[in-house]
Amino acid sequence: MILVVNSGSSSIKFSLYKNEDNKIVKITQGIAEQIKVKGKVSISYNQNKYEYDIDLPNHKIAIETILTKLDDLNIIENIADIKGVGYRTVHGGSISKSSLIDDSVLNKLNESSKLAPLHNPPALLVIEKFREFLPNAKHVACFDTAFHQTMPKINYIYPVNYDWYKNYGVRKYGFHGISFNYINKKYEEIVGKTKTNTIVCHLGNGASLCSTKNGKSFDTTMGLTPLAGIMMGTRCGDIDPSIINFMASTLKKDVAQINDMLNNESGLLGVSKVSSDIRYIEDGYRNGDELCLLAIELYTQKIANFIIQMANQQEGKVDAIIFTAGIGENSATIRKKVIDKLFLLNVKLDELKNEASYSDYLKISSDNSGVEIYKIRTNEEIMICQDVISFL
Amino acid sequence: MILVVNSGSSSIKFSLYKNEDNKIVKITQGIAEQIKVKGKVSISYNQNKYEYDIDLPNHKIAIETILTKLDDLNIIENIADIKGVGYRTVHGGSISKSSLIDDSVLNKLNESSKLAPLHNPPALLVIEKFREFLPNAKHVACFDTAFHQTMPKINYIYPVNYDWYKNYGVRKYGFHGISFNYINKKYEEIVGKTKTNTIVCHLGNGASLCSTKNGKSFDTTMGLTPLAGIMMGTRCGDIDPSIINFMASTLKKDVAQINDMLNNESGLLGVSKVSSDIRYIEDGYRNGDELCLLAIELYTQKIANFIIQMANQQEGKVDAIIFTAGIGENSATIRKKVIDKLFLLNVKLDELKNEASYSDYLKISSDNSGVEIYKIRTNEEIMICQDVISFL
Repeated sequence: MILVVNSGSSSIKFSLYKNEDNKIVKITQGIAEQIKVKGKVSISYNQNKYEYDIDLPNHKIAIETILTKLDDLNIIENIADIKGVGYRTVHGGSISKSSLIDDSVLNKLNESSKLAPLHNPPALLVIEKFREFLPNAKHVACFDTAFHQTMPKINYIYPVNYDWYKNYGVRKYGFHGISFNYINKKYEEIVGKTKTNTIVCHLGNGASLCSTKNGKSFDTTMGLTPLAGIMMGTRCGDIDPSIINFMASTLKKDVAQINDMLNNESGLLGVSKVSSDIRYIEDGYRNGDELCLLAIELYTQKIANFIIQMANQQEGKVDAIIFTAGIGENSATIRKKVIDKLFLLNVKLDELKNEASYSDYLKISSDNSGVEIYKIRTNEEIMICQDVISFL
Repeated sequence: MILVVNSGSSSIKFSLYKNEDNKIVKITQGIAEQIKVKGKVSISYNQNKYEYDIDLPNHKIAIETILTKLDDLNIIENIADIKGVGYRTVHGGSISKSSLIDDSVLNKLNESSKLAPLHNPPALLVIEKFREFLPNAKHVACFDTAFHQTMPKINYIYPVNYDWYKNYGVRKYGFHGISFNYINKKYEEIVGKTKTNTIVCHLGNGASLCSTKNGKSFDTTMGLTPLAGIMMGTRCGDIDPSIINFMASTLKKDVAQINDMLNNESGLLGVSKVSSDIRYIEDGYRNGDELCLLAIELYTQKIANFIIQMANQQEGKVDAIIFTAGIGENSATIRKKVIDKLFLLNVKLDELKNEASYSDYLKISSDNSGVEIYKIRTNEEIMICQDVISFL
């Protein structure tokens, strides 16, 4: 069995998979949350949901509780049956692929903590504890940054003092790489081609675009951190950088406080004044709310701007534009508004297919479209699971 | 006679024009510099250059000295012959055209000082002193921001808290508007058309792009301040905004210090490590210097990215791409490298014409190019002069 783990500062999400006859099947999934605050563990298994209010004073006890409950519910017979654990890890610095965790990888993750202070330290803690409980399993770190390590320098160097890159690692890393990797493999499987040029729009609460050339990440919109690029649920994306100095002096706040506001009070929430959730903004939009209208036009224009820029760098040879993640998979309105803004590309949306329900994926471009358009459901866990299996 | 004034914190540049039979002729130009430090006044007149080392303890004495020297050199008989004074003013906030200076305009300029703390206060001081010396002349403020007031909201609202726009004026203003206005008028005069769609690349030490739709500014790359947009001589342009927080904490500096570094130690200088002057970087490029090569590729890619984005928002109906200002007018290498990166547009450069010498302007696209390409020398002073004349 393979355990897939995605941890935050106060939560650990997990899923358990088995690999039978080369078919990966999910057995259960759950979450331990409110760690250090109160404590709650939820597990879904065989159409049932089990919930426990349990004190979780630290990550170690949370992990112990997860493993104990999996045993209590007879989901696993012996924790030693867990042969591999895969960790979704946000920032891998310059690591270019999923890696078996050893001291060298742990050191690099530690170094990258400066670049992802909210995400990497809890991930490291969770890795350490799982290794204690499961000493014989293979532990594999899968990085949101790894897929983008193929980007050329022209797309990852910032026009700042070059010493900032050499001495402090200031460059574009990009994120959502596990999702982009999954979507590209899936697309290539669907069309039976390899080395494709795609532009994938991963539009969730966090959101970024990735352009691939010959199947490899060539450019992406997030940067040193996940704040950059397109407008998101609560993040601003790219703005005039001196807004920070201006607002720090205007509001008498420091740079960290303004940075927090740009991360948590901006984007769709900041402009619409309604919600960070596109569904509520679309409601406002249909009711003629002026700021909801502005938020949706702004959001889709920013995405269109980057798609065009990426298509240009692909020299116009775009195989497909693909929408994925919460908004990308589910909002026909957003997909249509983005496609309608791509005047320099020969794209034709099939509006019925854009609106149609689907399971895994659906091609939503018309037959006379010069570029294919797809909606594909992403699955980062399966991607992690496959990477772990490759080490077993 | 009309005096055109461009003032900084320690200098006042001026030019004197006469308007004979609807033909504007430059009589003289000069500069008072090192104000508050030491003092020096230089005046060019009838192929001669006159230089004076004179103590200039403040802007008032600098202005008095300029007017006295113009009299001493018999360039003007009576300062009352100066019927109008035009001031290049960086930030006009929401003012949408050149304006006769009255209390209301002065108030708005005062308000905009928060947005341009380095530029507006000395401009205000100089306006006040010239009004004292020339009480009967018409005083006209010409704004670098005014031309962009026609931009639609989708292009000037930032994806941040909407209150920042409503309460503190945080929006894209754009700059170089006097130059863009001149270049667009000049282009329309050359081709005998109006309401054109152009993309003008004003590439000086400060640099920005402007896209016009039907002859009006539709989008531009600079933002709340002149730091935003493309990479420049020493400014970074758009970057991941959280680089500021990261570098402030890494270097133990405050946001204003990092902002200064992004303004003064970044861009072509920061990446090339050689100079902010493109001529020296092109030398390095020809000698195979790796960072000079990177700087030039990065610089031209950023310009190409915005041109493509602007052409897309013009729905592909681009009449012309125009290069102007120091680099835009003079660097054939930069123009070629930008044009070579525009894969989604039907553009064909005539390489001989790109390299050819010219006086005012030259069309540098081939006859089979779908979009015209021009190099046109900008003339912000003439533009200011014409605006002053319209008030006489």
